[in-house]
Amino acid sequence: MLILTKKEIENLLSPEEVINAITKAFTLFHQEQFHMPDRMHAHQGDNTLLLMPCFTESCFGTKLVSVNPQNSQKGKPSIYGVMTLNDGETGEPLALLNGAALTAIRTGAVGAIGIKHTSPENSTKLGIIGTGIQGFTQAIFASSIRPVREILVYDRNEEKAKEFIIELKKALPNIEISICSESETLVEQSEIIICTTSSQTPVIPDNSDLLKGKSFIGIGSYKPDMREFPDALFPLVDQVWVDTPFAAKESGDLSIPLSEKKLTANQIKPISELIIKQNIDQSKTTFFKSVGMALFDVVVAECMYKKALKNNIGTQIQL
Amino acid sequence: MLILTKKEIENLLSPEEVINAITKAFTLFHQEQFHMPDRMHAHQGDNTLLLMPCFTESCFGTKLVSVNPQNSQKGKPSIYGVMTLNDGETGEPLALLNGAALTAIRTGAVGAIGIKHTSPENSTKLGIIGTGIQGFTQAIFASSIRPVREILVYDRNEEKAKEFIIELKKALPNIEISICSESETLVEQSEIIICTTSSQTPVIPDNSDLLKGKSFIGIGSYKPDMREFPDALFPLVDQVWVDTPFAAKESGDLSIPLSEKKLTANQIKPISELIIKQNIDQSKTTFFKSVGMALFDVVVAECMYKKALKNNIGTQIQL
Repeated sequence: MLILTKKEIENLLSPEEVINAITKAFTLFHQEQFHMPDRMHAHQGDNTLLLMPCFTESCFGTKLVSVNPQNSQKGKPSIYGVMTLNDGETGEPLALLNGAALTAIRTGAVGAIGIKHTSPENSTKLGIIGTGIQGFTQAIFASSIRPVREILVYDRNEEKAKEFIIELKKALPNIEISICSESETLVEQSEIIICTTSSQTPVIPDNSDLLKGKSFIGIGSYKPDMREFPDALFPLVDQVWVDTPFAAKESGDLSIPLSEKKLTANQIKPISELIIKQNIDQSKTTFFKSVGMALFDVVVAECMYKKALKNNIGTQIQL
Repeated sequence: MLILTKKEIENLLSPEEVINAITKAFTLFHQEQFHMPDRMHAHQGDNTLLLMPCFTESCFGTKLVSVNPQNSQKGKPSIYGVMTLNDGETGEPLALLNGAALTAIRTGAVGAIGIKHTSPENSTKLGIIGTGIQGFTQAIFASSIRPVREILVYDRNEEKAKEFIIELKKALPNIEISICSESETLVEQSEIIICTTSSQTPVIPDNSDLLKGKSFIGIGSYKPDMREFPDALFPLVDQVWVDTPFAAKESGDLSIPLSEKKLTANQIKPISELIIKQNIDQSKTTFFKSVGMALFDVVVAECMYKKALKNNIGTQIQL
């Protein structure tokens, strides 16, 4: 069994390779060539353990994610994850991967695919709201898919934003990166805006004129009580593109406007349709919302495993 | 995260230490100081993935077991397993253990606890039916809890039985070990009989006179279509002792006699009652049936993890 740590995973695949793997995952999704049982939630007090298995023809894998909200008071991450990857034919365990690093990377690529299919090809100005690990990874992947020259960053915690741009400048030395003190300025000056916060109320101003013609990517909200986008967005978009239909239930970004009839269910479309067969007018206002799914994890984990084996990376243990 | 392989696990704890851990697990079970969600079954064609999480106060863990029946044709084990162990307070992954080795060892101790509480203390003659990994582990653990001087072994595949006793003699050099060519002879000449087969029909003769006064331990049947014990056993026993109430549904050893009214539901009792508060007349015919549960895995895995840490065993990886 090959053990792949955060450090080993982070530099294993190029953004292009991860984006290709996620494109393959969307193709499998569109062709229904996968089996993804409903994820299992186990609760113990305030804490949750999520068990997320998924099967493709070649592999299966299970991501186990623990969410312990009190950890932040102990100076520890509230989320830990491990991913096991098994051979699809024999069930033999092939690899154990750091689940948090895998999630960050594959979500970066999902965001980039949203950008690729919904935003103008020549977009150069990127706005990032939220400066956690996802803000970072989204910036990297977005810059790999569009000719980004300028990144604006907003976080309600300005200290956190300052530390964030120091790190981001190291990773993207040729891009001009600066802080906005208000999300309004960020939206005004960006063409593509990616939200990666855990907010329960919109982080984007509820102002139709400000939002018009921009490409919005929603990453942060994965629960019905989390929301990043305002009501003003919905009259501006023909469709909301999603990575999985579950997004309509799982994310408050969709479930709240749906329940308030500001969005209709038939406006919500899987982005796999855009990938496989159609194009949209990318100069209009667009919105892609991702909540993620285990299929992404297993396809990217397999890709990481194969490259690590080839390049002799990781720790091989005869379990 | 500490990675513990089969080899490292096998010699980590003494039978006594594992039996103590399982006794602790039964106490937690009796006091309801655990949370064990229903295990999740994911199917892909003929293959199954079982996801078995369980929480105690100090730890939680998930055993992931894959069952691929076609593997035997490829010369591979049909079952693979990994166990992840996490800190109960923070969710931090602590260890990854070989799941098959963990299962074999903890099931050995569960069988031994059955023997301890249902068989005469001075039993010296042990019969083992079925010569897989469980037959082996049960023999080792049974010999640690009773003054066994003689072990009789039966398997319908006599070649397999011959190889088995060569290995068992190495592990138990002071015990006389021999093959029986029929299970009838084995039952006749043994005081404690442990069945560890995957049979779908009884492996013990349906003969009341033969069974009377013996102590039977059922390990093999964990599905409704698997059965090792004959109808003649049930009129001889006052109760059937089980490791978990699920045994009544999960094992054909109980579900079939229940459906045919050869056994009543109120005859089935958790062995934790025997461990905690009462004794039975061990000279009568007794029957203990185990199907296992995730609580055993998490408690024994924690015990293994702690001892491995203390003795600097295993591979520590900063995941």
